Order: sequence, then C-alpha cells, then structure tokens
Amino acid sequence: MNVTIKDVAQRAHVAPSTVSRVIADNPRISKETKERVFKAMEEPGYYPNAIARSLASKMTYTIGLIMPRSAEDAFSNPFFPEVMRGISVVAHNEKYDLLISTSGNEEEEKQAVINMVKGRKVDGIVLLCSRTTDELIPWLREEKFPFTVIGKPLDSKGVCWVDNDNIGASRLATNYLIKHGHKEIAFISGSLEFVVSLDRLDGYKLALEENNIPFVKELVAQDEFSEDGGYNAMMRILKQKKPTAVVVTDDIMSFGVIRAAIDYGLRVPQDVSLIGFNNIPLSAYANPPLTTIDISTFELGVKSAELLLKILKNKDYMADHIIVPVKLIERKSCIKR
Amino acid sequence: MNVTIKDVAQRAHVAPSTVSRVIADNPRISKETKERVFKAMEEPGYYPNAIARSLASKMTYTIGLIMPRSAEDAFSNPFFPEVMRGISVVAHNEKYDLLISTSGNEEEEKQAVINMVKGRKVDGIVLLCSRTTDELIPWLREEKFPFTVIGKPLDSKGVCWVDNDNIGASRLATNYLIKHGHKEIAFISGSLEFVVSLDRLDGYKLALEENNIPFVKELVAQDEFSEDGGYNAMMRILKQKKPTAVVVTDDIMSFGVIRAAIDYGLRVPQDVSLIGFNNIPLSAYANPPLTTIDISTFELGVKSAELLLKILKNKDYMADHIIVPVKLIERKSCIKR
Repeated sequence: MNVTIKDVAQRAHVAPSTVSRVIADNPRISKETKERVFKAMEEPGYYPNAIARSLASKMTYTIGLIMPRSAEDAFSNPFFPEVMRGISVVAHNEKYDLLISTSGNEEEEKQAVINMVKGRKVDGIVLLCSRTTDELIPWLREEKFPFTVIGKPLDSKGVCWVDNDNIGASRLATNYLIKHGHKEIAFISGSLEFVVSLDRLDGYKLALEENNIPFVKELVAQDEFSEDGGYNAMMRILKQKKPTAVVVTDDIMSFGVIRAAIDYGLRVPQDVSLIGFNNIPLSAYANPPLTTIDISTFELGVKSAELLLKILKNKDYMADHIIVPVKLIERKSCIKR
Repeated sequence: MNVTIKDVAQRAHVAPSTVSRVIADNPRISKETKERVFKAMEEPGYYPNAIARSLASKMTYTIGLIMPRSAEDAFSNPFFPEVMRGISVVAHNEKYDLLISTSGNEEEEKQAVINMVKGRKVDGIVLLCSRTTDELIPWLREEKFPFTVIGKPLDSKGVCWVDNDNIGASRLATNYLIKHGHKEIAFISGSLEFVVSLDRLDGYKLALEENNIPFVKELVAQDEFSEDGGYNAMMRILKQKKPTAVVVTDDIMSFGVIRAAIDYGLRVPQDVSLIGFNNIPLSAYANPPLTTIDISTFELGVKSAELLLKILKNKDYMADHIIVPVKLIERKSCIKR
C-alpha cells in the first residue's frame, strides 16, 4: 500500500501537480489548498508520508541528540543512558522520536548538528555538555534553531540551559571531606575544556579558601571520563603528593582512582577517602560503596527536553535556565581522619 | 542560508517546477534531469535538504530502533544501552543516524514501527527481542522492509536475526551449578512471552534431564526484567521451596534475588549460590561479585547493525542469522555444596 501523489490528488480533488507543489511548499499554492492536501494525506486508513508532510508542515516531531564522544565511549559511562532515559520519557509522552548522532570529535559533532538542522531532520536539538570553545552554540543561536543545552555554556546569553549548580556541588563535596578532618585533598576531573570541569574546580578552590587550606596544584589532575582516566590521573598525583582524600567528579573515574590507590599500596577509605559524582547504580555496589554527589542525571534529561518542547510550542520563549538540585549520598568511601 | 527550490533550479538549469517534480518523484521526469537536480542539491557549500533528497533517493541514512518497553525502563537495564552502543558504533562508521522510538506496550511498539516504515523515516529497522506473539515480524516481512532482529523469532523463516545460543547458554549455567553439587536449582527468568525466556527454560530443563534431576515446577518463576522482578520471583519460590542455587537470566534481576534471599535470612553464596546472565558492569562490583553468563551484548548490537547494512546494500540478501558466542564468567556467587 505505497502511497502515490496520485492517490492524494484524488482524495483532495486537485491535480497531481498541485500535490507536488504543496509538498515542495510552493508559495503560489493557497493556504486552503494546502490544508486540503494535508488532510487528504491524513485520512483514516492512509499512512501519511512523514517526509512529505514534514517538508510542508516543517515539523518532524523528532528531537535531535548529539552524543559528544565516540559512540563506543558515550554509552559506556552510565551518565549518557541516564540523561537519554530522561529525554526519552518526555519525548515519548509528547509523541516525539529521538534522532541520535554520535560523534568521534568536535568537528564531527558540529557536522552532525549542521546535518540535522540544514537537513530539517529534527524540530530541535538537545546538546550534551558544553565546551569552552563551543562553536555550536553561537551557530545555533544565529540560525535561530530551537535548542537546549545540558551544562551551562560559558556564554549563556540567549541560550536555554539546564544544569546543576556545579560550583556549589563541588564545594559541598570538598567541605564534606574537610569536615571529616582532611586537608590534603586531591581533585580529579574531566578535561578543563568542559565548562562543568572548570566550575567544579572553582567550587573545590572555594571550599579550600573558606577553610584556609592552601591550594596545591600538584593535587589536581584532569583526564578522560573513564576508569582508565581516573587511574592515570590518580597515579600522576600519587607520584608527587600523598592526599588523604580525593574529590573525583565522575563515579566511573572513581573506580580507576580506587584501583590506582590499591596498586600503590593504599586502602580506600582507611588510607584515602574518596567522594564521587553522579551516583550511578554501580556506585552503591562498589567496594567500598561510594559516597557521591547525586546530580539527578535523569532530571537533567527530563528538564532539558521539557524546556525544548516549551521553545517549540512558543518560538518567542525567552532564554531560560533550570538548576537541578544535587544531593550528597553518604556511603562508605570516606572516613574521619 | 535557507535553501529554496529556486536556488536549486538555477544551479541545475531547469525550471523551479521541474525541481518540485523531482522532489515529488514524478515519473515523467527523466533520469538525467533528476540526477542534474540532485547534483545541484549537493554542490559544495550548499547544505542539501535531507528531507527532499530522501524523498527522491528513498534513502534516509537512518536506522530505526524500537525500545520494547517504556522509555523509563529500557534505559534502566544496562542491556539496552549496551546493545545501542554496538549499533551506534556501526552506524557511526557507516554515517548512519539512529532514530529511536520508545514504546510503553506492544501496541505502541507496532505503531512506532508502522510510523517509521510508512513515514519513510528510516532505511531499515533493528528490532530488539522477539515475542512469541509478535505481529511485527510477519508485517515487516510482508512489507519487504529491511529489518533485523536481536533474538531469534519463533518463526524465523525469511528473517535475518542475531542471537546467542540461548538453550546452550542456559544449559551451561545450569550444568555449572550441577557440577558444584547442586540439585535443588531454581530458575528465574523474564516473561515466557519472550522467545529468549522459553529457550533458556528449555536449556535449564535439558541440563536437569541429562543429570537425572527431576524438574520441579515450584522452582521456576518469571517476572519483570528489573530488580523488583527478581525480588518478587525469588520470594514466590522461597515460600514453597528451598533451592540451594538459582539460575537468573538477567543480572539486574539477580540483585533482587540476592535481596530476597537476605530478607529471607539466607546468605549468598553460603546458603544459596547464584549465576546471572549478561555480565553487566555492575555484576563485577556486586556483593558478592556475580558469576554470570556473558552474552556479549555489545556484539549483539554490532552484528545486528552489520547484518542490516548488508541487507540495505543488497536487497536480495538472503535470510541469515548470526550466533554470538557466550562465556561463563566465574566470580564469587557460587560455591560447592
């Protein structure tokens, strides 16, 4: 039951060439005729050709999502499935599909977004994470294409974004360790090209400052958001310093940090306390169970999609942002010194 | 730089109405003219309108993926992100996007597939899991729409599918427990509406039979693929029988089974040994670390996407299937009796 232009033309009582012109959005076709043709496309028992319809209605009922790393890595870290779960729930309730593009690097990421926008494949885009050098945000803003960002952009003017209070969250984690008597506190995060890493470093520094603890740059390391990344960062720190506690801004990295400590002959938490970020399911089952900052990853996804749908329903929606609260989950990876 | 029909017409040296007819795939336009118009759409510096192009070329360079449960549940169980990771890696290498539809029930699942197919939103579909009552497979086969299935369908005639040897895998797990001296072995799986659950039940029965252990139906329970599902199934069994070991065909369910055992005053593995399925990352960190069957979830995703791309490149590709091998991962949740 493949649909032809001719079928639609018959139903709408117009010439086939008129249907073609409607599909191509020819400005010389009257609004009334367009509506009649679309109606014919939607009649019961007839499966509308979504491509032709979206060409004309300019709606795809699809949300674009760009995975900011290689496909292989993105789904390894439970952060992304969990964000996607939040976005999916909202999309499903509003009858939107999700179009997902994975990108191996920044250039591919940009190309994926351009393809979605210029190819009119999606009605709006949710960007995950923002880089300090991000060219996508100014580009999307200039194109006036609807989008939201998970992660506050460096330049957030005119942008709708959803994030935690990252400075506050990191300050909370660091203060928790300080209250447990720690002074030699290391800080391990992802690359400082991500705004979130910069903000969390600031929160760490702020907590130290408030407690008159000097900042020691050898106690700070950045690496990839992976188990190996955590391992390598911790090893670099241990070769120079002996922290009694570590703030690690990603639970998966935390597992690598624990492994590095063990390889170095240290026990967690007896010799080194550790607080993670994200509260991924694995963190409760880790050995020791991780004390961690729950950033409400699912909610970040939900709010980013809800915000995008608001924009889609009202093109004049003003730039807005939502701060999703964090909470500290106490388990067994920190002890009093 | 929004693209108009007029721009394309100028580049292709044809009338704008000809471009409209090409977009609408009018049979009266010659192949040469069509090619000239498409070429004009693809000239450097020009972003092709993917919708118009796909209307004519009939290619979307998109793979459809239907999540067979509510969006909320699908991403909670690490099986799905991991399958998706496999599919994404192949899609990314071949420059395909992924269109994901989540469905709350079987009816929504069917509607999602029909929308993708009839709306020409995707070039092919990967179906996850097959139900014994599946109407989708006969429908897709009749439509001659390219698709692959992860999970062997009950009626696999003319279908390309990827799966483990589920009977063999479950037999392997059960035999492992028998070799450890267990005879009262419970079997907990997902609903028997899924072919995979039926096959695994068969493998369990086969192992019992080979070892002259009678099949006891009170030792078998099915429930949802979730922690709570595992908990409830184990509780139902414990109210009637005292197994010394359990085969649980999903690691997430295993966590619920462990919780039920503990609530019942039993220790794992001292009182009850347990072998899981899937080897999700969490299983290594569980308490006790789970002995489990690694079904190579990532590979299932990779192979399903590779098989789909083969079909897309060769419409005459014959029905085919790929068996992805499993392996038993020994950890600490089983002991000798």
